[in-house]
Amino acid sequence: MSNAPKPAAAATTEGTLANIVSHAKEYGFVFQSSEIYDGLAAVYDYGPNGVELKNNLKQLWWKAMTQLHQNVVGIDAAIFMHPLTWKASGHVDGFSDPMIDNLDSKKRYRADVLLEDRAAEHEKNGELARAETLLAEMGRLLTSEDLAGVKQLIIDEKIVCPVSKTGNWTDVRQFNLMFSTQVGAVAEDSSQIYLRPETAQGIFVNFLNVQKSARQKVPFGIAQIGKAFRNEIVARQFIFRMREFEQMELQFFVRPGTEGEWYEHWKTMRRRWHEALGLPAAKLRFHDHDKLAHYAKAAVDIEYEFPFGFKEIEGIHSRGDFDLTQHQTLSKKKQQYFDADIDPATGKAYGNYVPFVVETSVGADRLFLATLCQAYQEETITEGEGEQQQTKTRTLLRLHPAVAPIKAAIFPLVKKDGMPEKATEIFNSLRHDFRVIMEERDAIGKRYTRQDLIGTPFCIVVDGQTLEDDTVTVRHRDSREQTRMPIAELRAYIGEAVSFSRIFEKLEG
Amino acid sequence: MSNAPKPAAAATTEGTLANIVSHAKEYGFVFQSSEIYDGLAAVYDYGPNGVELKNNLKQLWWKAMTQLHQNVVGIDAAIFMHPLTWKASGHVDGFSDPMIDNLDSKKRYRADVLLEDRAAEHEKNGELARAETLLAEMGRLLTSEDLAGVKQLIIDEKIVCPVSKTGNWTDVRQFNLMFSTQVGAVAEDSSQIYLRPETAQGIFVNFLNVQKSARQKVPFGIAQIGKAFRNEIVARQFIFRMREFEQMELQFFVRPGTEGEWYEHWKTMRRRWHEALGLPAAKLRFHDHDKLAHYAKAAVDIEYEFPFGFKEIEGIHSRGDFDLTQHQTLSKKKQQYFDADIDPATGKAYGNYVPFVVETSVGADRLFLATLCQAYQEETITEGEGEQQQTKTRTLLRLHPAVAPIKAAIFPLVKKDGMPEKATEIFNSLRHDFRVIMEERDAIGKRYTRQDLIGTPFCIVVDGQTLEDDTVTVRHRDSREQTRMPIAELRAYIGEAVSFSRIFEKLEG
Repeated sequence: MSNAPKPAAAATTEGTLANIVSHAKEYGFVFQSSEIYDGLAAVYDYGPNGVELKNNLKQLWWKAMTQLHQNVVGIDAAIFMHPLTWKASGHVDGFSDPMIDNLDSKKRYRADVLLEDRAAEHEKNGELARAETLLAEMGRLLTSEDLAGVKQLIIDEKIVCPVSKTGNWTDVRQFNLMFSTQVGAVAEDSSQIYLRPETAQGIFVNFLNVQKSARQKVPFGIAQIGKAFRNEIVARQFIFRMREFEQMELQFFVRPGTEGEWYEHWKTMRRRWHEALGLPAAKLRFHDHDKLAHYAKAAVDIEYEFPFGFKEIEGIHSRGDFDLTQHQTLSKKKQQYFDADIDPATGKAYGNYVPFVVETSVGADRLFLATLCQAYQEETITEGEGEQQQTKTRTLLRLHPAVAPIKAAIFPLVKKDGMPEKATEIFNSLRHDFRVIMEERDAIGKRYTRQDLIGTPFCIVVDGQTLEDDTVTVRHRDSREQTRMPIAELRAYIGEAVSFSRIFEKLEG
Repeated sequence: MSNAPKPAAAATTEGTLANIVSHAKEYGFVFQSSEIYDGLAAVYDYGPNGVELKNNLKQLWWKAMTQLHQNVVGIDAAIFMHPLTWKASGHVDGFSDPMIDNLDSKKRYRADVLLEDRAAEHEKNGELARAETLLAEMGRLLTSEDLAGVKQLIIDEKIVCPVSKTGNWTDVRQFNLMFSTQVGAVAEDSSQIYLRPETAQGIFVNFLNVQKSARQKVPFGIAQIGKAFRNEIVARQFIFRMREFEQMELQFFVRPGTEGEWYEHWKTMRRRWHEALGLPAAKLRFHDHDKLAHYAKAAVDIEYEFPFGFKEIEGIHSRGDFDLTQHQTLSKKKQQYFDADIDPATGKAYGNYVPFVVETSVGADRLFLATLCQAYQEETITEGEGEQQQTKTRTLLRLHPAVAPIKAAIFPLVKKDGMPEKATEIFNSLRHDFRVIMEERDAIGKRYTRQDLIGTPFCIVVDGQTLEDDTVTVRHRDSREQTRMPIAELRAYIGEAVSFSRIFEKLEG
């Protein structure tokens, strides 16, 4: 290999959310759903490059969970589940927001958000005690489900609708975030079911089927990737909060009393995973939950610093035996595990128990967005030498090669002299192993630019010398350096760079 | 490598559907959805081995489509789409079955099925002309949407409810097979949307976004894998007809006039794909549609011979410009492509047109079921020699190694003498590349049996000799032959056997 002169170092800046949204559309990562019909709110489609990036992230997570651990297996449960599942999980009764409508503007608001906004105003006006009293009172009313009291508080605070400017309000009502539909054609069999609002319950209801068929012993985990649906009132920030989204979840079943150490273990492992993927430590942080959900004994978010601030990309929760116990009660089917290991305290087997659960739950779309935001860079670079030197801006996606949509682009320098045929040969020799493309159109510089914009780590150029000695130029996305390499070495060279193994090694510490 | 004596050849039989359903549950391939709540009709979950097999099939299809072809790219559109999509596609108005209820039994039936059953009775009674007249009349009434006429025909034929035995019927009504739900919280913005009944429309509405962002020229294709939902009246035959199912579709956009040759091309390619995966030619057949759907110019099914007969696993359809033209009309956005190639007939560019579409659509769950049915075998084998010879039945899954859930199982012969440690070393050296497992429990014969039952192609045994010379025994699932091999060769040996490349080569003919 011989190296061409090293290009000058570049000054880089990151993108705003607006930059990234427009880049994602133009270069085939994310399109608004049903765009020709002016879109569907809070729903998005993944384009040709987006689907490859997302699939790579999903596959990496899946393999890291199920291949690296002997005691983790996967499942793929349906989106449709028996409605009692959501009774057991607490979603039928508790997965709702308190809503209030203004009778003049016909606009609907979250009652708690109206009150929180008013408390923030008090605080801004220096009335800290008044703000705190208001929030405490709201908390008390919501906990005791006193919705009339919540309405009275809104009236007492003289809160008006931002649109109509009136305080002419309906009653406060709980609005469930689950989507429902009717299944079955025969009238008496027809029943209301829900689109699952989380994938976790698909794992819990299958706990014993999986444990037995996969012959697992506690502690063990069940991994799942799948869609979930929430009728979000305020859906925003691009693909960060969508009504249809994808989760990647591990439910890890442990012996009661050991959940604390497993919770710490998975906190460490999951943060290391995001760093191994290329999210820098400085842009990741843990955020402990102040207020725990009804099922949780401990909960922490891993947050990434998006252009719009630190936001959750993954949650780690110590769920205790809440879910399995609820299902046991409603289904009247024992959800117990017999632990034959000897308890040193008693000298006897631990025996039957309902395992405790430690959950790790990543938003696949949020991870996708974090990866895209992190990769997006605008660089000021200088090209040429002496009088021909010029400065320009280069936009590129510094994606980890293991997740880049296209691993290499093959360019015949010119469309003649057998170069396209040679490029096709190379394409054919690599396409079984990686996603590679061939591009003959445009000047070579323009072709490099385009691959930078979609994050392709390598460009392979077939030139006159190639026809003589079967070597090609490999141009590296990040450094813009070019190296000469025999065609015969390409497969191993690219294979090494895009391999999941380099990431797995980092996970193993 | 040295070979142990070759085991005796075996006589094999295939499984019934009941065998396969029970095997699928016991060995973690497919569970009934929400089984602890006595299930949800026509919905199933994939267990630990099922999800791996299904993911392998999906990935193989995806790579065969998008990696092997320079002119095929993927997308992943959302399940939720703008409701006008389904107006354009014809599903709102036409995707329904004519239903009739019996007022005494409260049972609901498909009106056309009641009449077809009656026609079959006439035929059985030798009244062929009467049967033909009845079917023709029914066809005429349904085509002209004369539902009152259909009811009258049921009355004239004196058809009674099989349960109540009365002819006390309601009117015939069209029952739409789409699931609907309400999206949006704000009262005036709330609207009815549908769960997509097919994935194809997600491709059509994105046609121009994809063509432009991926810089594709006609002919080119868009591939997609995703869930679809149909409120099937009669859902049965295990995972063959489910209310929630997964499709793998290619929509291939071509210049009008060339659709015939592309239709033939994809017919050939898709059948070859199923054969490359291991479905034998004798159990596959083409079935041309007699009655074409409203959008189709030509349509053929690829059928596989399941234990319950030849049934569709894939459809290939020449859809013309029906979908794009419909979307163009409803969205008022041009869905045209400018073809700069020169038409030899005119000497001018082909110019603007709405491309024609050739679709290939596989049911991922049906392919999974076909693969499982094909792999399931019960063998009569003889073991031992002389007086110790005995005959027994071995059940195994002869899955193609490329799609098998687990590629190799590693067994320390005994749980001592450093064998488990050596086995762990081997596990760690292979797990980055393939899904491998380690198993120490039970006698070695029982461990082989278990891996046969889930289709693991290789069992690797660590024995006394391994500790001396770093070789292991590799036992082959199908032949039961054992070969001795250096540990250092395992990765390449298994890698070659499980590689997708062997299948891709068959596709390339």
